[in-house]
Amino acid sequence: MTKPQAYIKDLNEFVGKEVTLKGWLYNKRSSGKVKFLILRDGTGLLQCIVFKGNVSEEVFETADSLAQEASFEVTGLVKEEKRAPGGFELDATDVKLIAASVDYPISPKDHGIEFLMDHRHLWLRSKRQAAILRIRHRIIKAMRDFFDDRGFTLFDPPILTPNACEGTSTLFETEYFDLGSAFLTQSGQLYAEAGALALGKVYTFGPTFRAEKSKTRRHLTEFWMVEPEMAFFDLDDDMDLAEEFLEYVIQTVITERKSDLDDLERDTTLLEQVKRPFPRITYEEAVKILHEKGVDFKYGDDFGAADETIISDHFQKPVMVHRWPAETKAFYMKRDENNPNLALGVDVLAPEGYGEVIGGSQREDNLDLLIERIKEHNLPQEYFEWYLDLRRYGSVPHSGFGLGLERTVAWICGLDHIRETIPFPRMIYRNTP
Amino acid sequence: MTKPQAYIKDLNEFVGKEVTLKGWLYNKRSSGKVKFLILRDGTGLLQCIVFKGNVSEEVFETADSLAQEASFEVTGLVKEEKRAPGGFELDATDVKLIAASVDYPISPKDHGIEFLMDHRHLWLRSKRQAAILRIRHRIIKAMRDFFDDRGFTLFDPPILTPNACEGTSTLFETEYFDLGSAFLTQSGQLYAEAGALALGKVYTFGPTFRAEKSKTRRHLTEFWMVEPEMAFFDLDDDMDLAEEFLEYVIQTVITERKSDLDDLERDTTLLEQVKRPFPRITYEEAVKILHEKGVDFKYGDDFGAADETIISDHFQKPVMVHRWPAETKAFYMKRDENNPNLALGVDVLAPEGYGEVIGGSQREDNLDLLIERIKEHNLPQEYFEWYLDLRRYGSVPHSGFGLGLERTVAWICGLDHIRETIPFPRMIYRNTP
Repeated sequence: MTKPQAYIKDLNEFVGKEVTLKGWLYNKRSSGKVKFLILRDGTGLLQCIVFKGNVSEEVFETADSLAQEASFEVTGLVKEEKRAPGGFELDATDVKLIAASVDYPISPKDHGIEFLMDHRHLWLRSKRQAAILRIRHRIIKAMRDFFDDRGFTLFDPPILTPNACEGTSTLFETEYFDLGSAFLTQSGQLYAEAGALALGKVYTFGPTFRAEKSKTRRHLTEFWMVEPEMAFFDLDDDMDLAEEFLEYVIQTVITERKSDLDDLERDTTLLEQVKRPFPRITYEEAVKILHEKGVDFKYGDDFGAADETIISDHFQKPVMVHRWPAETKAFYMKRDENNPNLALGVDVLAPEGYGEVIGGSQREDNLDLLIERIKEHNLPQEYFEWYLDLRRYGSVPHSGFGLGLERTVAWICGLDHIRETIPFPRMIYRNTP
Repeated sequence: MTKPQAYIKDLNEFVGKEVTLKGWLYNKRSSGKVKFLILRDGTGLLQCIVFKGNVSEEVFETADSLAQEASFEVTGLVKEEKRAPGGFELDATDVKLIAASVDYPISPKDHGIEFLMDHRHLWLRSKRQAAILRIRHRIIKAMRDFFDDRGFTLFDPPILTPNACEGTSTLFETEYFDLGSAFLTQSGQLYAEAGALALGKVYTFGPTFRAEKSKTRRHLTEFWMVEPEMAFFDLDDDMDLAEEFLEYVIQTVITERKSDLDDLERDTTLLEQVKRPFPRITYEEAVKILHEKGVDFKYGDDFGAADETIISDHFQKPVMVHRWPAETKAFYMKRDENNPNLALGVDVLAPEGYGEVIGGSQREDNLDLLIERIKEHNLPQEYFEWYLDLRRYGSVPHSGFGLGLERTVAWICGLDHIRETIPFPRMIYRNTP
């Protein structure tokens, strides 16, 4: 029987002891009578030293024969070694091949991105990709912990939906038995509103989909969103929560996954500054900043990626842009009582050019106004009757926001392209492997 | 500005103090000069006592006028009251209507299930449905904590996949730009195997889909699965983990959500017995049990729901049935070295008639044998080349299992039908609201 083995990340418990580890050959160096095997076991890397004088000829030959990504078992004495990656080394007394690896396709030389994406199932074994996935996991855990510790109930909205949250042009469609078409969700928000009115404070966390023909470094067709929704929260409460949330997630992750961020050579200076309060400016003030920088921007337009970068560079911290021209925003947003042309929405722009990571708003809670908006947006009211019920029976002020997980992973990891933030990214030109 | 309010679940911190709460009217009683308002705020229920002598006439009239599910704000003194649900009462000094509720459709009388499902967005407000959703949340948290605390990395597999895990007849299909069709995932397992060989131990946790025409109380078309996958685990290790996992989840949830389980009137006697070790029997032994009970069962068939109930009733504990006739199981399962007609798979059957909650196996790690199986199952080998790569480059013994979340929620909550285990269930005859 194969027993669960010791792992590299736990070696500090085994200093001076003999231990058996299992994994794959990450790399290898030779120096006459000694082989340096770099073992990879998914939790870290470990240099295993095989001295010709310490092992049988057969074992030395096995060590010599291992190719990149061959799987093997190694037994030896754990030594502290400050200069080694991870701080430990293994003095090997035995090496056993588990299975060979002939002509592993990803050699240490440079490969083009399409080649790496075609071999994504193997590329994930690299130090860099593994570090990103461990950071992604820690980000998700921090997000869930944040809401769990603050009295939110997780609320999983449906993925297959009968209607679109914001228009139907960018939806994946599928046949649904005898009921016609169903669409893959773009957002769990409308359902989360039903959840908030039942449970007070809820959050969704799941995959969402956009069949958008955007071929940019910020777009995936399948991406994960976290969407809190709170009864009795107004826009200011919503911004307070978004701010506390981002600070918590980023400070937790940069502390707890420091070694992975070091492996990515991520300079965390600006991330360390992600602390409350964040600047809060109106859309109008943001437009003023653009005009001061000489950008030819028309009041009433949405910001493009370049505009977002200019605005956030002005602050070097996440910046919250609130009170938008209503026509730029979705039908469900409440209007500002001081100026009905403005929607009570907020976008949070990340620094370092990562753009919008959060979009939120106070929701329209007045039945008549909401029906009016649905008509203005030419949406079929019959699909929204259940949503209107939330305003018919004990309507309350409520707010929420959505955060795009992969953009946040890219930001925290300092990645150029969103495709490395998820195990198997889906883009308009790729749905394999 | 609407400030986040106090919540019913935190009232023990406010005994003898004045507090303002916000929520909805769950129910109301009258007794001459006193109104008993049952406030619901998503975290619990609270009886608010409005004495005519203690409040202005206007406030008393407001209290009198509140209809079921009207939203309101109430201020008063928190008193301990052992006989009250939750253990507290409020001596109201002020009541303010937020928004009315006219003819709330779900009255305290009985409604048919289709009516309730059509009003699922409101039905969620009932004490029973809210309790189920809070238990669901706690189950998910326990599952994630279990893996997070044991060195697993979360690995989100793609939802849109180019091929099917187990045949193509029960798949939802969608057009994917110029790349032809994509299918909604039925399982993240094959991808998780790539993850395990990169990161050692991983788990997936996400929605999965089956376009199966099964109209039973155990089937949803959209349901959540958790799927751990571990390098260097054989079938025995896999069963050890499944056993530890189920014990942890169930013991945690019945302790931490006792009051919700009490609201559901769930008898937890058998759940308390879900402790290691679980009985482990072979498929052959399970068939013997059926034959002893007089069931006309043919060796080589899969168990039906009735068979599963008979087998699990024999033990009153989850039972692990392992070593199945290979032809009943999926192509990727490793064969028993002592009998190549048997697949190293395991099904875990829950007691009390809840059937299979876990299916797992040791995976075939031999390249040639795996190619043979793919051919035997008439699967297109070209779609599985990436999966075969996992056997070409450092193959290792590995195992995993999948647990169906909603069946587990139904089991723990003691529900007759799986439709109440998720906010908006999807079944062959329903994809609304």
